[in-house]
Amino acid sequence: MKKLIVCLAAFLCCVSLFAQENLGSRAVVNSPEINPDNSVTFRFVAPKAVQVQVTGDFLNPRQPITMKEGENGVWEYTTAPLPSELYTYNFIVDGLAVKDPNNVYMIRDVASVMNLFIIGGDKGDLYSVQNVPHGNVSKVWYDSPTLGMKRRMTIYTPPGYETGKTSYPVLYLLHGSGGDEEAWIDLGRTAQIMDNLITQGKAKPMIIVIPNGNAAQEAAAGYSQENFSYKPAMGGGTRGGIATYPESFKDIMKYVENNYRVIKKKASRAVAGLSMGGGHAYMISKDYPNTFDYVGLYSAAVGPATDKEGNVNKEVISQLEKQRDNKFKLYWIACGTDDFLFERNKQYMQQLDGMKFPYIYRESDGGHTWRNWRIYLSEFAPMLFK
Amino acid sequence: MKKLIVCLAAFLCCVSLFAQENLGSRAVVNSPEINPDNSVTFRFVAPKAVQVQVTGDFLNPRQPITMKEGENGVWEYTTAPLPSELYTYNFIVDGLAVKDPNNVYMIRDVASVMNLFIIGGDKGDLYSVQNVPHGNVSKVWYDSPTLGMKRRMTIYTPPGYETGKTSYPVLYLLHGSGGDEEAWIDLGRTAQIMDNLITQGKAKPMIIVIPNGNAAQEAAAGYSQENFSYKPAMGGGTRGGIATYPESFKDIMKYVENNYRVIKKKASRAVAGLSMGGGHAYMISKDYPNTFDYVGLYSAAVGPATDKEGNVNKEVISQLEKQRDNKFKLYWIACGTDDFLFERNKQYMQQLDGMKFPYIYRESDGGHTWRNWRIYLSEFAPMLFK
Repeated sequence: MKKLIVCLAAFLCCVSLFAQENLGSRAVVNSPEINPDNSVTFRFVAPKAVQVQVTGDFLNPRQPITMKEGENGVWEYTTAPLPSELYTYNFIVDGLAVKDPNNVYMIRDVASVMNLFIIGGDKGDLYSVQNVPHGNVSKVWYDSPTLGMKRRMTIYTPPGYETGKTSYPVLYLLHGSGGDEEAWIDLGRTAQIMDNLITQGKAKPMIIVIPNGNAAQEAAAGYSQENFSYKPAMGGGTRGGIATYPESFKDIMKYVENNYRVIKKKASRAVAGLSMGGGHAYMISKDYPNTFDYVGLYSAAVGPATDKEGNVNKEVISQLEKQRDNKFKLYWIACGTDDFLFERNKQYMQQLDGMKFPYIYRESDGGHTWRNWRIYLSEFAPMLFK
Repeated sequence: MKKLIVCLAAFLCCVSLFAQENLGSRAVVNSPEINPDNSVTFRFVAPKAVQVQVTGDFLNPRQPITMKEGENGVWEYTTAPLPSELYTYNFIVDGLAVKDPNNVYMIRDVASVMNLFIIGGDKGDLYSVQNVPHGNVSKVWYDSPTLGMKRRMTIYTPPGYETGKTSYPVLYLLHGSGGDEEAWIDLGRTAQIMDNLITQGKAKPMIIVIPNGNAAQEAAAGYSQENFSYKPAMGGGTRGGIATYPESFKDIMKYVENNYRVIKKKASRAVAGLSMGGGHAYMISKDYPNTFDYVGLYSAAVGPATDKEGNVNKEVISQLEKQRDNKFKLYWIACGTDDFLFERNKQYMQQLDGMKFPYIYRESDGGHTWRNWRIYLSEFAPMLFK
C-alpha cells in the first residue's frame, strides 16, 4: 500500500504541471502581505508600467496611493498599521483598475469585484474562520406562488443543527439594492460572525434565512436562467405588477417553517435588513402583524409615512400603531452619521416618537457601507431570542 | 401602500448612487458579447495601452490574439463562431494578465482566476441554469475522527429532496490535485448538469457528495482557519502521517448515511473522480470491498500495480481480484488522447485485461481539462443506478 502511495505521489507531481489550466503568465509575489505590526504590503509586478497605484477602503480619504517601483518591475507599497477590519482593494495600472493577480480572494458588490484581506485581532477575528464549530450554508430553491417563480435563498443552520433534534429561532436577514442572496454571506461574513458569536456564547444558536429581495429575480447573478448574460445592477425590479417582495414574504416563511426545525412563535422570529432590505424589514414587520418580536433596520431606506403632498399617510400610521399595540421585544434602528439616509432615519424616528412607538437607536460613525452592516449584525444578533 | 412604494422607490434611486463601494473607475462596455452566430466579441477599454490581447481556451492553439484599438481606446476582437461549450479567458494588457472588468463571472482553478462565458446550444445548455427544477447545494461540516478534524464538503441534493420522503442513491465525486470541495460545483458545473439530466429523464435523481480530498485541509481556500493567508497550491498534503484520505473516506460515508435519506446498498453507491480524485476512486473502490457498484476514473492518476523495481504488487492485485470477484455493475475508465496520463491509463487497463477485470473504456479527444471532465460526468451520471 505504501509503495502504491509513493508511486501515486510521483504521478501527482506530474499532474501538478498540467491540472491547472493557466491562462497567461502571472508573476508570483507575496501580496497582500500582512506584517506583524498589522501594516500591509501590496506588491504588483509590472515592468512596463509607468504608474501603479493601490486604492481601497483602508485609505481615508480614498485617494489612490502611487506605489514605488523596485527591482524586476515589482511595485510595492506598505500601509501604516491598520485597525482590525475586513478591507477591499484593487490596483490601478496606468489608469486601469486591475485586480491583484496574487490574491485569489475577491468579493462582488453589485457589478464590482474587489480583492480583500482581513486584519485580525478584533472585528477581523469575528469575521474570520476560527477553530470553532461551523454552521452549514445551503443554497435552497423554494416555491413562490405569489411571484409565480421558483426562487433561491441562502440558509445558515447553526453548528449541530443537522445532527441534532432541537428546534431553533429564525432571523430573516435582508440585503440592499443591487444585492442578492449571496450578499450577506460573502460581503456580510454572516456564517463566520454567527459561528464565532454562538461559540462565544454571545448569540443564541439560530437559523439565518437570507432570501433574494429583488422581486423580478429568481436567483443571484450566475444562478438564474439569465446565466452569465445577466449584468448585475442596482434594483432588482418589480415582478410585472404581480406582487411586491414583502407580499411574497409569506412564501419564504412557509418554506422555512415547513422544512426546517424552527420555533413557530413570534418570540422566535426576527427580521432585519440593510438599506433597501431595511425598508423591507420595516414593511414586513408591520404588514405581517404580530409575527416578529425583533426588528432590525440597518441604514434603512425608511422615512416618515407621508403621501406625495407631504401629509401623514394615515393607513401606514394605523399599521404602525397596531404593531406598537401588539407589542414586540426589540425595534432596533442603526445608522451612520455619514449615511445619506441619516436624516431620513432621524425623521422616521421623530414620527415614531410622536406615536410613542418604542425603539432603540444605535448611531455609528461612517456611512452606507458593509463595514457598518457587519458591525450592526454583530451587535444585533446577540440581542435576539433572549 | 402604493404611495409608500413610490416614495421608497425614489429613495432607492438615491441608494443606488451610494450602495456600491466602487474602487477605481471601470469603463462600461459590453464584454464578452455573444453574437447571434455564436461568435464572441471581447472589448476592453485601455486608451493608454500599447497592446491588448485576449487569450483563453476558445483558442486552439492557445496563442494570445492581439485586439484592435478603435475609438475612445476601446480594444475589440471577435472570434469565429464557437462550438457550444463553457470557455475561460482573460486579457493581456502590455504583458500583464488582466481580468475582464465588465464580466463579474469568474472561476478559480487552483490559484488562477479566469473569466468565463458559455456558448449555448449543446453542451453549453447542459452547463447552464435552465427553466427546470433545481437541486440544492450545501456546504456541510462533518467530523473526521480518522483525520482528527472537522472537514467541509459540498452536497447536491436533487430537486424535491427537501420537501419529499424518498431515499436516493449517492455518487461520491472527487476532485483533482489543487482542487477542493468547490471544484466540481464551480468548474465542473455539477448542479447545472444534474438538474438538466434529471429533468430530461437521462439521469436518476441522486445525491452527489463532493468532499475535500486533501487530507491536510479542513476546507477550501478561504473557508479554513488559514482564511485568506492560504495561497492555493497543487496537492493538499498529507495529514502528518496520521491517515490518508482514502482511509478517512469512511467518515464521509458515515456522515452521509447517518444524516441524509440515502439507500444504503452497494447498488446505490457510486464513486468517481478526476486525476488525483480518479486515483482516489480507484483506491477507495478496492479498499472498501463490496461497497460500490459504480466506479468512474476520469483522466485518473492510476497505473499498473507495481513496486519500485517494476514487479507486480501482489497485495494490490489481490485486492483488485477480490473487487472483481465481488462483482460490480460498472467500472468506467475515461481518458483523452492528449492527456499526459493516457499511457498510464493504457498500462493500467492492460493489467486489468490480464486479470479479466471487467471495465468500459471511453476514449475522448483532448487532454487533462475540465472540458473533458464535464463531458465525462455528463456521460457517467446517466449510466448510474439503472
